[in-house]
Amino acid sequence: MITRQRTNWLKMLFIWKGSVINKIIVQLIVIAVLSLITLYFKGKIYDYKVHLNPTIFTLIGLALAIFMGFCNTASYDRYWEGRKLWGALVIESRSLTRQVLTLINDPSPEGKKSKEDFIKMIAAFCWSLNYQLRNKSGTEHLSRLLSAEQVDYLRDKRHIPVIILDFIGEWVSKQAKKNHIDTIVLASIDNRLNQFSQIVGGCERISNTPLPFAYSVLLHRTVYFYCFWLPFGLVDSLGWMMPLIVLLISYTFIALDAIIQEIGEPFGEEENDLALNTICRTIEYSIFEQAQIPQEDYKPTNSYFVD
Amino acid sequence: MITRQRTNWLKMLFIWKGSVINKIIVQLIVIAVLSLITLYFKGKIYDYKVHLNPTIFTLIGLALAIFMGFCNTASYDRYWEGRKLWGALVIESRSLTRQVLTLINDPSPEGKKSKEDFIKMIAAFCWSLNYQLRNKSGTEHLSRLLSAEQVDYLRDKRHIPVIILDFIGEWVSKQAKKNHIDTIVLASIDNRLNQFSQIVGGCERISNTPLPFAYSVLLHRTVYFYCFWLPFGLVDSLGWMMPLIVLLISYTFIALDAIIQEIGEPFGEEENDLALNTICRTIEYSIFEQAQIPQEDYKPTNSYFVD
Amino acid sequence: MITRQRTNWLKMLFIWKGSVINKIIVQLIVIAVLSLITLYFKGKIYDYKVHLNPTIFTLIGLALAIFMGFCNTASYDRYWEGRKLWGALVIESRSLTRQVLTLINDPSPEGKKSKEDFIKMIAAFCWSLNYQLRNKSGTEHLSRLLSAEQVDYLRDKRHIPVIILDFIGEWVSKQAKKNHIDTIVLASIDNRLNQFSQIVGGCERISNTPLPFAYSVLLHRTVYFYCFWLPFGLVDSLGWMMPLIVLLISYTFIALDAIIQEIGEPFGEEENDLALNTICRTIEYSIFEQAQIPQEDYKPTNSYFVD
Amino acid sequence: MITRQRTNWLKMLFIWKGSVINKIIVQLIVIAVLSLITLYFKGKIYDYKVHLNPTIFTLIGLALAIFMGFCNTASYDRYWEGRKLWGALVIESRSLTRQVLTLINDPSPEGKKSKEDFIKMIAAFCWSLNYQLRNKSGTEHLSRLLSAEQVDYLRDKRHIPVIILDFIGEWVSKQAKKNHIDTIVLASIDNRLNQFSQIVGGCERISNTPLPFAYSVLLHRTVYFYCFWLPFGLVDSLGWMMPLIVLLISYTFIALDAIIQEIGEPFGEEENDLALNTICRTIEYSIFEQAQIPQEDYKPTNSYFVD
Amino acid sequence: MITRQRTNWLKMLFIWKGSVINKIIVQLIVIAVLSLITLYFKGKIYDYKVHLNPTIFTLIGLALAIFMGFCNTASYDRYWEGRKLWGALVIESRSLTRQVLTLINDPSPEGKKSKEDFIKMIAAFCWSLNYQLRNKSGTEHLSRLLSAEQVDYLRDKRHIPVIILDFIGEWVSKQAKKNHIDTIVLASIDNRLNQFSQIVGGCERISNTPLPFAYSVLLHRTVYFYCFWLPFGLVDSLGWMMPLIVLLISYTFIALDAIIQEIGEPFGEEENDLALNTICRTIEYSIFEQAQIPQEDYKPTNSYFVD
Repeated sequence: MITRQRTNWLKMLFIWKGSVINKIIVQLIVIAVLSLITLYFKGKIYDYKVHLNPTIFTLIGLALAIFMGFCNTASYDRYWEGRKLWGALVIESRSLTRQVLTLINDPSPEGKKSKEDFIKMIAAFCWSLNYQLRNKSGTEHLSRLLSAEQVDYLRDKRHIPVIILDFIGEWVSKQAKKNHIDTIVLASIDNRLNQFSQIVGGCERISNTPLPFAYSVLLHRTVYFYCFWLPFGLVDSLGWMMPLIVLLISYTFIALDAIIQEIGEPFGEEENDLALNTICRTIEYSIFEQAQIPQEDYKPTNSYFVD
Repeated sequence: MITRQRTNWLKMLFIWKGSVINKIIVQLIVIAVLSLITLYFKGKIYDYKVHLNPTIFTLIGLALAIFMGFCNTASYDRYWEGRKLWGALVIESRSLTRQVLTLINDPSPEGKKSKEDFIKMIAAFCWSLNYQLRNKSGTEHLSRLLSAEQVDYLRDKRHIPVIILDFIGEWVSKQAKKNHIDTIVLASIDNRLNQFSQIVGGCERISNTPLPFAYSVLLHRTVYFYCFWLPFGLVDSLGWMMPLIVLLISYTFIALDAIIQEIGEPFGEEENDLALNTICRTIEYSIFEQAQIPQEDYKPTNSYFVD
Repeated sequence: MITRQRTNWLKMLFIWKGSVINKIIVQLIVIAVLSLITLYFKGKIYDYKVHLNPTIFTLIGLALAIFMGFCNTASYDRYWEGRKLWGALVIESRSLTRQVLTLINDPSPEGKKSKEDFIKMIAAFCWSLNYQLRNKSGTEHLSRLLSAEQVDYLRDKRHIPVIILDFIGEWVSKQAKKNHIDTIVLASIDNRLNQFSQIVGGCERISNTPLPFAYSVLLHRTVYFYCFWLPFGLVDSLGWMMPLIVLLISYTFIALDAIIQEIGEPFGEEENDLALNTICRTIEYSIFEQAQIPQEDYKPTNSYFVD
Repeated sequence: MITRQRTNWLKMLFIWKGSVINKIIVQLIVIAVLSLITLYFKGKIYDYKVHLNPTIFTLIGLALAIFMGFCNTASYDRYWEGRKLWGALVIESRSLTRQVLTLINDPSPEGKKSKEDFIKMIAAFCWSLNYQLRNKSGTEHLSRLLSAEQVDYLRDKRHIPVIILDFIGEWVSKQAKKNHIDTIVLASIDNRLNQFSQIVGGCERISNTPLPFAYSVLLHRTVYFYCFWLPFGLVDSLGWMMPLIVLLISYTFIALDAIIQEIGEPFGEEENDLALNTICRTIEYSIFEQAQIPQEDYKPTNSYFVD
Repeated sequence: MITRQRTNWLKMLFIWKGSVINKIIVQLIVIAVLSLITLYFKGKIYDYKVHLNPTIFTLIGLALAIFMGFCNTASYDRYWEGRKLWGALVIESRSLTRQVLTLINDPSPEGKKSKEDFIKMIAAFCWSLNYQLRNKSGTEHLSRLLSAEQVDYLRDKRHIPVIILDFIGEWVSKQAKKNHIDTIVLASIDNRLNQFSQIVGGCERISNTPLPFAYSVLLHRTVYFYCFWLPFGLVDSLGWMMPLIVLLISYTFIALDAIIQEIGEPFGEEENDLALNTICRTIEYSIFEQAQIPQEDYKPTNSYFVD
């Protein structure tokens, strides 16, 4: 994710990093060359003049507006829902930590140690969800937070966050059997675990069900036909300004097409994707702070890009 | 569902599978032929010139934009709501499994066996909802997961998922009578069953109430009139380019009309419908993994198309 | 509600039933006649030529797009919210039935009879909500499902579903006093009754608060001025094609205006309204099936139109 | 609120009451006069011809479409959220009444009297919220429903509904101390009080946070510049028809601007605002009917306008 | 936040404060100068005529409409969600206050004092969230509401509201240990604390995840290219009116771009941001009023601007 602030209006016009130009530079060059050739031949292919008046673009533009408006909104909704789910993970982690710290009645040193293990399991849960969504194995990384047997048990499993959630559930159930909590508090904590379950399920839903493929194809085609025909359509009325105008208009549409593609899969590691690692670090820092578990100082990054 | 990734921008322009071309090829050929005839006769019917200037299409285009924008959004909302409901089914199945495994106090071997039966009932519930939405009987398939009497009882019932849910409810109620859970946990588990009930009801709602028929008719008509009149409107200004342009514009609108139709009924088995079978398999795999019920290895499909 | 499937694309163009043509046929004839007169006089009123070039319609079209897009979305939202509320009624009825069957501990024959009465009360609740929304009295129809005293008590009441809900509440409260359920289950069932209460309130809200009247007026006026001025605006550029084009464009806008009007009051009995009777029958069949109350076989209708 | 039904399509064109014409009549007259002057001078100011071709209006129209579409949706959302909150108040009042009547175990005559007092407090709560939102004091009116000490206590308070809610909470808490309810029912009723609290907070939010002022300014300016420039832009192409067309287009935009302003503050007493008094009367009638508290007969109003 | 009411329609056209003109005055002057130069040279750069006909702007306008419509909606959603979260804070603070006052059974004078401390902690929580979102330290300000040790403990913490929430949780947990509340009420109050946790998390989400940067860049560029090219495009058709028209159109788009930027970060202290301080004061006043804690009279501000 790019966390850059909007700067001076003039500088914003010439920013490279964070705009998607590096992803679409090839296409833009192709269009620029095509424009220059069209300008040179005055829109003729051999002797056949290509008749394309600007009105045609209003008609195609209608289709484009419908597709782009829709796909953009749908993609951003996926992005924002993903963000909400991870925001909910922050919230629920803290609530569960607070509940465990204040509602579980076990002042013995083992109790304190056990609670710390529990809170590390929450952190492990967050990291494992992160790894699953980004298709990384990551079990070795979890050894920092889980016991050796737990890591061992997880090794050949497919739905690791779900299994860790079962660990958490067992821990809570054990506390109930030891009478450190009564059933009502148990039910209340269990309710929180269902929230975690919902977060896993929600993220999987976004990750496994892309925007229907037919939309992507249709949008992509309409955008490119539109842009490749623009030079022929504008060559007569704009003269030497044509390549510049074509390039700008193409830039806006092709860039939006690229952004839609990136934003629609919000759990990746590209420039406009969610900063899952940062969120995981925040959760870990925050719940360790609540439980007073010793940890390294928090060092903010200086870079514009957080992953 | 097509799970294909977006590929290179150039290849995307020539993909056949996953675009809806095979569903609308007839209409496109009709329009192509009409365009060529119109071009040959220069837009005359006998001696009567058909006067249709491009501005007219802006006016019809306004209506088209309103209808298409709306119907597309409404259809996609149905699709995404359907997906959310099935996502919720994944979530709730796992949560219920976790609750049964950790909160029900019955360490005896019969208890373990009984819990396994219970978890198979959850899987049966998911498959039966799938079969109901796709209008399949499927009771024989359920014999893999349910006992013989249960399958027998289901045979002439209409709302099979609801009845299976009652089985699940009875099982839980029996556990309460055997004092394996207290009332608070009972209420909490019952709450989960209400969630299942809501998922059934939500899916039925989408399945039984199509987009109001009047919208479909109106959209369909406006799209086709627009496309059939395009050749007459563009023949004078575009010359020999006309059939090509008409074909492209028609393609975008007719394809969107077809997509809207497909997406709006998300529980079918067409290319852009939800992959209910895959989701059911995922649920089964995941909850069996949680409960350590032995099962075959998971084999991902290699095909673009999952059903 | 029209439950017709979309058929062949060609047949869709000539369907009469389910399109709203029969509601707007008068207006379309008026416009057709006006178009022919305008064509005959070449857009003059006496000697004054009416100057209306197509660009004007782009300007009015802007207002039209804003109004229509908004009113259509707002109306459909009302329709879909109404559908959701009735879908929730299906869900909650089944959940409540399941809870009463599995959680209430009364194996005596009177208990079974009492539960059947209870489930009939749920059905009565649904029908009474239906009657209230459609402004029918219907108390006599309820005698099939309620006891004589209950029907008597309801006779002069205004908010019948609310009173039936109180009956249901009393029944549950009595079960608690007889110790057939404990307080936690009582609270859980009571929670379900609150859901019923929300459904009643939600339906009343939609039914009592129409779309602000000023929108209807403004939309209606803009549509009709637009359509009545079209002949003058297009007579010069389209020639003899004009009446046909005007008729098509008018059809789309006036039909949408009519659909908006119908859809916005989803509890009526018109072609595009919700099929409340069918939903009530479904609920009754489904909960009777759950409770194994004997009933007639379900016979699906063959008609396109369900009420 | 205007509760008028849509009538005959022809009559709808000439309705005065309920359209917002009386609020914008001055502006429309100014524009009409300006149009006539422009027509007389043929768009010249002294000898300078004002060059404004219709294309310009397409450009400004773009901005207008964005602003109007947005502000209208945002305003209507505020209106509909306000309506939903008051609908929730109806729902929760009935639910709370049902809970108090069926779940509180106190068959003594004092108990019945006390419950009646309680139900009157609910009604008082609704009215006081109404008064607060409309900036009326109304404490004297509440004496009909509350005891003298309560009215006295409220006199110099700022958040009256919140304090009445505390009264309600105390009453419930007292019942718990007298053992008429156990803690679970207490928690369930308390949950309902939180719903009331949410309704108060939601209404205050809408009431205290207007649509950001910058939007209002920008929309207002764009609308008026657009309308005031229209005569100059259309005078050449439309001739003597120009004032009529300008008036119609101006009417649609200025009327929508006025509606947006009215709808955006839904708790006022203007024609398109919510009928809070009617809702309060409905709540009172309905919960008194539930509790069989004697009251006057309900007399529906005959007027189109309910406040 | 500007709380100004909409005034007379004529005055609205000339309001300075509350419109965003002071933020964009530089850009507007640059465009005005550019327009005048273009007018003087009649759109030529040296001898090269810049060919830009108005149709081009329709094409760019399409992209602009898509970007602006989307970014504006997305920004406003962030603003309104922020407002909703703070509205929820008002609601939950009052509910928690009511629960503590009526449900906690401790009539001793120490109990009353302790409850007052508790209610001050709620106020401290609100203020600390405010300070965190606005990047202020504010611990010294909290000493008015918290005990000295608490303030001391908070000094080097990063997530202060979360820690204060833990204080609140501990207080409640202590009351449970002293048997002033039973577990059910404890769970119900704990539920409220989870709501507080959600509010913190929601605010952090909005504050930490801006609108994807690529959108800002793309919108900004399209707006400015559009505005800077307008003079060349309109110079031939509008003549001496051109600078005026260009200025108005530029004003609307650049102002909207600026509003989008402001509204999208709703927790700042600019003119169109949320009035967090006022909301905090309202909460404090309201819950102190509920608990009858002596406080200063409420004095409403007379200024248009509240922070």
